[in-house]
Amino acid sequence: MHHDPHVESHLKSSQSLADIVIGMSDGLTVPFALAAGLSGAVDSSNIVMIAGIAEIAAGSIAMGLGGYLAGKTSQDHYQSELKREYYEIEHLRHREIEETKEFFAHLGLSEEIQNAATNQIAQDPDKWVQFMMKYELGLDEPDPRRATKSALNIGLAYIAGGIIPLSPYFFIEDAGDALKYSVVATLICLFLFGYFKSKITGVSPLQGALKVMSIGALAAGAAFAVAKLFEGM
Amino acid sequence: MHHDPHVESHLKSSQSLADIVIGMSDGLTVPFALAAGLSGAVDSSNIVMIAGIAEIAAGSIAMGLGGYLAGKTSQDHYQSELKREYYEIEHLRHREIEETKEFFAHLGLSEEIQNAATNQIAQDPDKWVQFMMKYELGLDEPDPRRATKSALNIGLAYIAGGIIPLSPYFFIEDAGDALKYSVVATLICLFLFGYFKSKITGVSPLQGALKVMSIGALAAGAAFAVAKLFEGM
Repeated sequence: MHHDPHVESHLKSSQSLADIVIGMSDGLTVPFALAAGLSGAVDSSNIVMIAGIAEIAAGSIAMGLGGYLAGKTSQDHYQSELKREYYEIEHLRHREIEETKEFFAHLGLSEEIQNAATNQIAQDPDKWVQFMMKYELGLDEPDPRRATKSALNIGLAYIAGGIIPLSPYFFIEDAGDALKYSVVATLICLFLFGYFKSKITGVSPLQGALKVMSIGALAAGAAFAVAKLFEGM
Repeated sequence: MHHDPHVESHLKSSQSLADIVIGMSDGLTVPFALAAGLSGAVDSSNIVMIAGIAEIAAGSIAMGLGGYLAGKTSQDHYQSELKREYYEIEHLRHREIEETKEFFAHLGLSEEIQNAATNQIAQDPDKWVQFMMKYELGLDEPDPRRATKSALNIGLAYIAGGIIPLSPYFFIEDAGDALKYSVVATLICLFLFGYFKSKITGVSPLQGALKVMSIGALAAGAAFAVAKLFEGM
């Protein structure tokens, strides 16, 4: 895959995909588990529904804005490091030369090549700074629209995921009955979601699907057990 | 910071810190917003408490296991790419030589240095593969215990965060009254949490604190509004 010349565009679309995966994964799991837990403690679907909707609102905003802030922070961080590197190659040129040499020394290159390569790189300030940003600090330039896109992708995917486990409670009055449909529908969706997610990331799809489904089942089971326990207290 | 010779150990501890930040950030926000939302729709603290506990169980397991799986997946991915690189430098040596040259060409080095550096690197298969893993694929070797540590850090931080907004509901019968204490306690904690988180990541602490607090308030407000809306239907 990494020999594909279109690897750049591939990486960009996979960032959006990663956001959607994050949002949908939690959106399918947490509202599902919450609804299951509450169904063990209350009889009326109405309360489960209201709690579920409150959770979807809370979760999508918290995750979406969290994604936005993370994107903004990495942009700020990149810009401040960029400024610093420009400052350093001008005012601490000696040290930066040493650091550049060290990079080539770490690759196992001879002293002669270390010096020659460092001299060439240090001739163009912009290229030199780009080099330091990427290979000394391991920072790639972030996409400026990434933060907003990230927030929307994560938030909407969370809502889309959360509607699935909740929908039976809209139509079935008894929470216990609704739970059965919710479990079946959500486990199928978690399986399908895990299958396609694994296919995209190159992991064994069946194994991935079972893993994702198990996490959902475990979270829901634990929530159900804990809620039942506290209801009896 | 990146000139610190202890940067390696610093990075390791900051991974645990990042996990704790992720878990606590969502743990403070989502159960808080859920409790606030439910308080707008039901009168009894008991239901809010049970829903909150179910949410904490669900969220900590979903996020903790999610962290575990993410860690495992990156390990598997690293190992499979490692195998592939060893295969390629043996059976597709020509192409790998070209790729290594391209790396140095991208740095802006002359053809002569490209060739000399590539020749030196290609002499030691292990070093060459390490080079390709890190600089062609951008992959660092993951810590094998990372997945388990990550799961525990995220899960426990989520629980620790979630207990704060929920605790007033344990002691105060009326959900509306408990909400007031929950809002005050949680907003203070979100502020402090945002402050220290920003200090660690090098962002302006006061600005960071206000941002984190605003996300929590926004999520709680939205959950409250949405739950009130659906309650009236």
